[in-house]
Amino acid sequence: MVELHDVPETHVLAIASHVTSGYVGNTMATFCMQTLGCEVSAIHTVNYSNHVGYRRFKGRKSNPEEIADLYAGLKDARLDKFDMMLSGYCPSAAVVEQVGKIARELRTRASTKPGSFFWVLDPVMGDNGRIYVAEDTVPVYKSLLKDADLILPNQFEAELLSEVRIHDLATMKQAIAKIHQAHKTPHVIITSIRLPPTAVNTPTTADEDLSTTAKLSIIGSTATSDMKPRLFRITVPVMPVFFSGTGDMFASLMVSRLRQAATAADVVNKANWRSPDEVAGPDLPLAKATEKVLASMHAVLKDTARYYGEATDSLERRRQSTQLNEGTGAEAHEEQDAVRHLQVTRAAEVRVVRNVGALRDPPDATEFQAQPVAVEVEGEVASE
Amino acid sequence: MVELHDVPETHVLAIASHVTSGYVGNTMATFCMQTLGCEVSAIHTVNYSNHVGYRRFKGRKSNPEEIADLYAGLKDARLDKFDMMLSGYCPSAAVVEQVGKIARELRTRASTKPGSFFWVLDPVMGDNGRIYVAEDTVPVYKSLLKDADLILPNQFEAELLSEVRIHDLATMKQAIAKIHQAHKTPHVIITSIRLPPTAVNTPTTADEDLSTTAKLSIIGSTATSDMKPRLFRITVPVMPVFFSGTGDMFASLMVSRLRQAATAADVVNKANWRSPDEVAGPDLPLAKATEKVLASMHAVLKDTARYYGEATDSLERRRQSTQLNEGTGAEAHEEQDAVRHLQVTRAAEVRVVRNVGALRDPPDATEFQAQPVAVEVEGEVASE
Repeated sequence: MVELHDVPETHVLAIASHVTSGYVGNTMATFCMQTLGCEVSAIHTVNYSNHVGYRRFKGRKSNPEEIADLYAGLKDARLDKFDMMLSGYCPSAAVVEQVGKIARELRTRASTKPGSFFWVLDPVMGDNGRIYVAEDTVPVYKSLLKDADLILPNQFEAELLSEVRIHDLATMKQAIAKIHQAHKTPHVIITSIRLPPTAVNTPTTADEDLSTTAKLSIIGSTATSDMKPRLFRITVPVMPVFFSGTGDMFASLMVSRLRQAATAADVVNKANWRSPDEVAGPDLPLAKATEKVLASMHAVLKDTARYYGEATDSLERRRQSTQLNEGTGAEAHEEQDAVRHLQVTRAAEVRVVRNVGALRDPPDATEFQAQPVAVEVEGEVASE
Repeated sequence: MVELHDVPETHVLAIASHVTSGYVGNTMATFCMQTLGCEVSAIHTVNYSNHVGYRRFKGRKSNPEEIADLYAGLKDARLDKFDMMLSGYCPSAAVVEQVGKIARELRTRASTKPGSFFWVLDPVMGDNGRIYVAEDTVPVYKSLLKDADLILPNQFEAELLSEVRIHDLATMKQAIAKIHQAHKTPHVIITSIRLPPTAVNTPTTADEDLSTTAKLSIIGSTATSDMKPRLFRITVPVMPVFFSGTGDMFASLMVSRLRQAATAADVVNKANWRSPDEVAGPDLPLAKATEKVLASMHAVLKDTARYYGEATDSLERRRQSTQLNEGTGAEAHEEQDAVRHLQVTRAAEVRVVRNVGALRDPPDATEFQAQPVAVEVEGEVASE
């Protein structure tokens, strides 16, 4: 079996949620990174029985003091030498601040050795136009962008951070340019963008509709030395089901694959792993890493979708044979619906442990090759 | 790569400690079981920065209410259907009681379907003659033995549970017989026994010294239908270094490999996965599973010992070049010793994530083949 000799041994501090059952947050990220050979030190921001999408869960949130305490323990025991940090969901603005404090401390200590610390920040705030964290986390995330190396917002989070409303490729580029220039983040990937496939390689007008097709785009950029965007884009088929934890899966696989790609491109000792200006978007280590990550994810999610289909078919057959009578009370019907929701949600848990092979050896990735993004923006870059 | 088609998909509830850095408790067990394709639901009994062997650590213990709450969350969300449970270190007698309550509930619910729930209990209490948990946990562990399917005490813990002082093979057999008969535990493996290699296959006298050789014995037994021991023994070379977490590694690999072996032997639908009486000790699924587990562990620990040797050599060279002056205060010398202890302890962390191959495909295990244990015990079985 492949022993990952080409994936460098990487010590990662992972700060995100923990669930007992299922795969989101650190529960997803830790396994994915460990499977790719990373030494993962996990600090949990919440400790729940399962993810909240089930609508029933128990457990508790960590407070910032607990997170600070565990980190202080690592320092005392000299276990705080990390090559990378991955941070995800935080239950409060105070926890986001604490996470930022840790990242800044690690960055400051690494400042004499360029490239020796790299922070991947997933600014988990919301999706599809809705904020699902406390509103006061948004300004805290903004204040952290200058310290992060790579951020992974979805389309809505990118809008919150850039204050640019994204409705076409031109505004997408504007948002990324703003993050590079105003917030000084060198690498950005915007995940989960719905764009018409015809827009690839062709200039797009401002009013082109982004939400009509079943293709999902991932657009990334590593800033040039004068903080201009250098874009690439990969289009993937949309899965028919919503799978929780895929953002954490993307982020964690990205950690391993980006260090691998940056090592191969010999930029791992350069500040922020920034590639020379002559490297085009689709040739960036960021693009190469994204290709591998998406190939792995597509294989795992295809298997999950197959399993989900079988499980929900069997649930449907059982439901039909145990239909409640029409006379049964509303409460019993409600409970039946709630139970069905629990079962369907469980069937959608990503089948990550049964697909270690696809994580370690991503199948042929030609389908997910990074493409250039040609888009004209008036005046080239949006002003503040 | 091997896709583990022969390791059945197993849902495991794992209750043990969590550390941010390093590999003990659930941090070790979760990864090992996931790597073998198990769906692991982890509830943490403590949440520390690192294991206490470093002598510096921070974090907090869970209280029994937190553990009960997470389990209640799983029940509410219908995520409490487990094939197996693995329980390890508990920070108090109250937590041991809570863990027992959960196991009994799962066992009761599974009682209509023999073999559908299997509890592996690692009664973590102490080692080498010293109890390192609160003394009041010992009677609680004793009271749980009747509900466990397999227990994994070390030699000292077996003495505590059986109240038989073990000093040779005969007393070892007495202790196991007592656990089978008085406590009704069907499967027992006593780990880490130092026995002279000449004792294999030959009757041993009561006063034979067990602690003079660099070989370690693992002795296991599955009770016959009349609760008589059915012993097997595997001898392994002793590693030159103490590696923390190896007990958790053994227990967690055992979970996967035992279900695989019990499935292959077609006893997985029998109560407690008990083999028919005609199956000899070395042919038990328990013995077959132990062989695979030890082969994997030996490969991983050999790699860890190699890494440890390199790391400590390099630390030694650095120490010699930065020797403190004789005039330096005692405090500075003490701190230097403490730091060296931290570094050496870290170097001894088991290199589990870089050895996924050895976990999934154990190398040739002929070296670790289970042997019969021939030992005459006066009156055959010790009385209470």
